[in-house]
Amino acid sequence: LSIEVHPILGVGAVSPGDDVASVLLPGLESLEPTDGDVIVVTHKIVSKAEGAMREVVGDEEEFKRLLVEAEAAAVIRRRGDLVIAETRHGFICANAGVDRSNASPGTMILLPDDPDRSAHRIRRRLERAFDCRLVVIISDTFGRPWRHGLTDIAIGLSGMAAILDLRGTTDWMGHELEVTEVAVADELTGAADLVMGKASGIPAALIRGYAAPPGEGRARDLVRPPGEDLFR
Amino acid sequence: LSIEVHPILGVGAVSPGDDVASVLLPGLESLEPTDGDVIVVTHKIVSKAEGAMREVVGDEEEFKRLLVEAEAAAVIRRRGDLVIAETRHGFICANAGVDRSNASPGTMILLPDDPDRSAHRIRRRLERAFDCRLVVIISDTFGRPWRHGLTDIAIGLSGMAAILDLRGTTDWMGHELEVTEVAVADELTGAADLVMGKASGIPAALIRGYAAPPGEGRARDLVRPPGEDLFR
Repeated sequence: LSIEVHPILGVGAVSPGDDVASVLLPGLESLEPTDGDVIVVTHKIVSKAEGAMREVVGDEEEFKRLLVEAEAAAVIRRRGDLVIAETRHGFICANAGVDRSNASPGTMILLPDDPDRSAHRIRRRLERAFDCRLVVIISDTFGRPWRHGLTDIAIGLSGMAAILDLRGTTDWMGHELEVTEVAVADELTGAADLVMGKASGIPAALIRGYAAPPGEGRARDLVRPPGEDLFR
Repeated sequence: LSIEVHPILGVGAVSPGDDVASVLLPGLESLEPTDGDVIVVTHKIVSKAEGAMREVVGDEEEFKRLLVEAEAAAVIRRRGDLVIAETRHGFICANAGVDRSNASPGTMILLPDDPDRSAHRIRRRLERAFDCRLVVIISDTFGRPWRHGLTDIAIGLSGMAAILDLRGTTDWMGHELEVTEVAVADELTGAADLVMGKASGIPAALIRGYAAPPGEGRARDLVRPPGEDLFR
């Protein structure tokens, strides 16, 4: 009934063309992955491995502004330098996912092209390496309306349903639950962030003991359809 | 470096006037609380203990509608039966926190009057009982704009800073971090939800091994000031 969250240590620098599963292997081996383990990987190393980066040309601030506009499918809000944009994946976040933290000097990191597909590929390789069923989540750090501070959420997913669907179940008093769809993939991702740490350079974590809802979910299932959304 | 998340078992039904710390004691004893443990408690049992409930009078749906209006400091959005409201605490959530799940028959549960104060009281009692420094978080389940599904977040807090403030720190490449204020209290609360479960009636969890940012924070620190908020 308890769960454990372990940092995956020993992951070195990642370059374009690297295989993300391979760079995780040394750190994972000491954790002895087993059926049902959830592996959360920051998108930063996935983007680097996939070459989803841009070399800065000219003035860095101006370059970043142009890159954000290029990456944005739609601008949702703008205030001063802050741009809240919808990405082509449907995610809504600051700067359309363009980020300098943990980027190589003179580069900026973008979101992976298809983070669900990236997660699936990493999962298949790790499942082969360790001969067990795994879940892989790719994370990013997003702000929230109304709430101060940022949290890590799932932008890519393979091996579980993104949502724990309790519709039709009852509470322990026999009432039908009002809270019925729990974004457990995001809760797992936030839990992983507690051991990863943005300053420490630990880019991945393993969560053990959580019985993930079965299914072939995608992080895109976590995007609320615009027609249902009251805050665009 | 790793953390553990344990459900707190054996918590029975809670009635007005009960002491929340006392009902947690039997389940906590077997976990042997130690310095730095984080205890997350669903607000449902705190509200019940504090009498933050209303007996339904007349038609249940109509009563709920009136109660939501009474609990709302401001209505942010409305669509059909769905009301997104700001509570007097500053939280923005569906139905101003009025909920029937896990309520006693014929009653509805409200948010605690001052969840930070409730957290502080529970913490003081548990610290005395176990002679160690603890963190206490009171949780509720909120929806998010843009993202499908709900997650548990902190609505009351005592014994830590709500936000991990990384402003001025650098990433492992030496860049100043762009993501600087992490809402770790919310990430802890979501992690706890993974072992609590809304259908199972487990109302509390203990997180061990997390070095919480020191400070006397409050969950109200997690409310984004309206003037900074682009989505009201």
